Amino acid sequence: MPLVVVGGIAAGLSAAARARRIDPRLEIVVLEQGSAVSYGACGLPYFVEGRVREPGDLVVHTAEYFRKERRIDVRTGARVAAISHPRREVALDSGARVAYDKLVIATGARPDTSGIQGVRQPHVFTLHTLDDAVRMRAFLRERQPRRAVVAGGGYIGVEAADALRRNGLEVTLLERSRHLLLRGDAAFTDAVRKQLEKHGVEVRCDTAVDSIEAGVVAGVPCDMAVVAAGFRPNVELAAEAGIRIGRSGAIATDDRMETSLRGVFAAGDCAEVNHLVTGRPAYIPLGTTANKCGRVAGANAAGGRERFSGIVGTSIVGIFGMGFAAAGFSLDQARAEGFSPVAARIEAHARPRYFQGTRTTVELVADRNSRRLVGGSVIGEEGVAGRIDVIAAALANQMRVDEFEQLDLAYSPPFAPVWDPLLIAAQQLLKEL
Amino acid sequence: MPLVVVGGIAAGLSAAARARRIDPRLEIVVLEQGSAVSYGACGLPYFVEGRVREPGDLVVHTAEYFRKERRIDVRTGARVAAISHPRREVALDSGARVAYDKLVIATGARPDTSGIQGVRQPHVFTLHTLDDAVRMRAFLRERQPRRAVVAGGGYIGVEAADALRRNGLEVTLLERSRHLLLRGDAAFTDAVRKQLEKHGVEVRCDTAVDSIEAGVVAGVPCDMAVVAAGFRPNVELAAEAGIRIGRSGAIATDDRMETSLRGVFAAGDCAEVNHLVTGRPAYIPLGTTANKCGRVAGANAAGGRERFSGIVGTSIVGIFGMGFAAAGFSLDQARAEGFSPVAARIEAHARPRYFQGTRTTVELVADRNSRRLVGGSVIGEEGVAGRIDVIAAALANQMRVDEFEQLDLAYSPPFAPVWDPLLIAAQQLLKEL
Repeated sequence: MPLVVVGGIAAGLSAAARARRIDPRLEIVVLEQGSAVSYGACGLPYFVEGRVREPGDLVVHTAEYFRKERRIDVRTGARVAAISHPRREVALDSGARVAYDKLVIATGARPDTSGIQGVRQPHVFTLHTLDDAVRMRAFLRERQPRRAVVAGGGYIGVEAADALRRNGLEVTLLERSRHLLLRGDAAFTDAVRKQLEKHGVEVRCDTAVDSIEAGVVAGVPCDMAVVAAGFRPNVELAAEAGIRIGRSGAIATDDRMETSLRGVFAAGDCAEVNHLVTGRPAYIPLGTTANKCGRVAGANAAGGRERFSGIVGTSIVGIFGMGFAAAGFSLDQARAEGFSPVAARIEAHARPRYFQGTRTTVELVADRNSRRLVGGSVIGEEGVAGRIDVIAAALANQMRVDEFEQLDLAYSPPFAPVWDPLLIAAQQLLKEL
Repeated sequence: MPLVVVGGIAAGLSAAARARRIDPRLEIVVLEQGSAVSYGACGLPYFVEGRVREPGDLVVHTAEYFRKERRIDVRTGARVAAISHPRREVALDSGARVAYDKLVIATGARPDTSGIQGVRQPHVFTLHTLDDAVRMRAFLRERQPRRAVVAGGGYIGVEAADALRRNGLEVTLLERSRHLLLRGDAAFTDAVRKQLEKHGVEVRCDTAVDSIEAGVVAGVPCDMAVVAAGFRPNVELAAEAGIRIGRSGAIATDDRMETSLRGVFAAGDCAEVNHLVTGRPAYIPLGTTANKCGRVAGANAAGGRERFSGIVGTSIVGIFGMGFAAAGFSLDQARAEGFSPVAARIEAHARPRYFQGTRTTVELVADRNSRRLVGGSVIGEEGVAGRIDVIAAALANQMRVDEFEQLDLAYSPPFAPVWDPLLIAAQQLLKEL
């Protein structure tokens, strides 16, 4: 009996491909409800913007490729209606049944449009699937909208605002909470707001969107609206099969990505993972995590023994050429997680001035009791990804601030200053501890 | 009685400044034999190139600044002739004596010109002090040399070759060993060579320079020569005072940067430090390490209790716009250090192609027994510093390859691909282990 994978985007196909490597003879079936598989969903805003020309440019591999080159039976348009674990089979919408020995659930998430009336109108969009992006680009081309409202100031909302603004639209970004980019940090939010406003995007926080009308959203006139108000994990199939759902609302898994049903694994945007800073399950749906967890789920489903250690919540988003990156927790978030946090924020040159080095902002957050780093953020025009990745590595290793301060970071004038902004921030934080 | 610091460039002034912070009332004397203090020696090639306009642009703080703002008695032109620890005093060339309670030795290193005849001619240069660079730039301007030979293919040699080539000279780089940039790695050497040759620098390895004549070096005609054949730590003062010298030839220190004489500390290019990958002392003179160790030495000399955990040998050099970075050990170096190393080298896009991402090469080296990373290198046009810093953080934390492979690195199309080249390299290395 085959390994069946429900879902064929990031986690699902990572699982299938990894299972194939572990067991070259295993029968593997992937059931994807949509028409496309294995595409880079994080590239969708850049397709809307126009930088990515063709939808196909975002597709990593086609179903055809998986069938021919990997001998993985990828079936598109195959929506699973139910999982019957006692019978070890899934039932499709079509009525067909597929038996499994091991199952990987990679059903992903869907945009959270709950509580917003009028989302099914033709000028209202989410930006979640390739089809969403194709529809939005067609609308931009054919209807030439002049004013857009984006509801939601998370990654997708901000990237959508950037993409639409670059297409010449007037853009207003509405965010229901006080903060942007899910960071719960006033200074971070201010920097994001400033960069958006500098490039002509109007930003309104503390502004809830309850309904979308034809020409106006929350009092803002517009010709189109993008709803980017977060995600909800697709857990219904799993829940109905009796699989335990975690407190976050996503599928609970152990470090082998196995669910509460033996032989059933879950990975990607539908599943919780361990947060290495808290040691507790967290729901932070991202493509990188989906791919990694998918690999582990696939390996274990194929008879391997691998574990996924966890995430630290690293993220980065580009806004009109500036990078906003974070990992772990902000001061307020850390407090909410039960830490006694203290933070230091510095601004320094990313490279020496004689190499046209620009200013970068680094914030580090540590726990007063353990003196360990619990979070950080980096904002700037250069070196942002590399610096947040160093913080991510430090968080994964539960480094103390005094250890972090002595990291042997690379120095040469074309690349970095002799005291890297990360180390300056750590020195500052040590004074606060 | 004061804290006396011998040497006023990187480690010495870091020590003095840190001591001042620890003890606001301590009397601190810095004795520097040269005329300038506290300058960024790593910027010297860029002064030769012309990108840095004035020597003063490389000076972080003047002696005046330290005297006035930090109440640190910085004396230039003050060469120490001897240390008498039994009497707790240093004797200057001038005959003056300065008593100390605690002593920090930060005497640095000097270019190793041993075994090369003719280095004292006016057309022969080292690139170690601000005076060296000023003299070289004056020579370029006044004598308009057309052909240069650089003896030595380490960082300084390669940077000098880059700077001279950009000034329009024909440049030949001669390296006595088989490898460039001290990496002991054929593929790394090939990449460096290719980049130098692409920009018109002729490279000859396995070519020793025994003597420099008026118009020719090792058979290569030239109007000027740069000797960049490594460094020798300035340990004579310390050795004569009875301080233990380590096997590397540099001053042995403990993790408080204290030497074998109680109350006498050493830091910077004259001192050994702990290598975190081997756990053994190493001599890798770099400005970053000098600053960090200087701080620790200064803190402890002022009554603090700090320790320096160690280095991992991180380095980066820019060659005509491409970054060549390394940390820890290459395969051959790891074998020489007693590991059972295995390596994987991959080439991947530093960012998605639709963001004009260029190719980057990542090599990771692990020990077969412990499965821990022991080294890595990154070559490319973008993201090189950030990626080597992640490797450096991993080495400092003694991460295993399977842990490294799951690092939660930032992903967004403008910055990095969903599978970072670092993680692809780790996946490849896991297959080899």
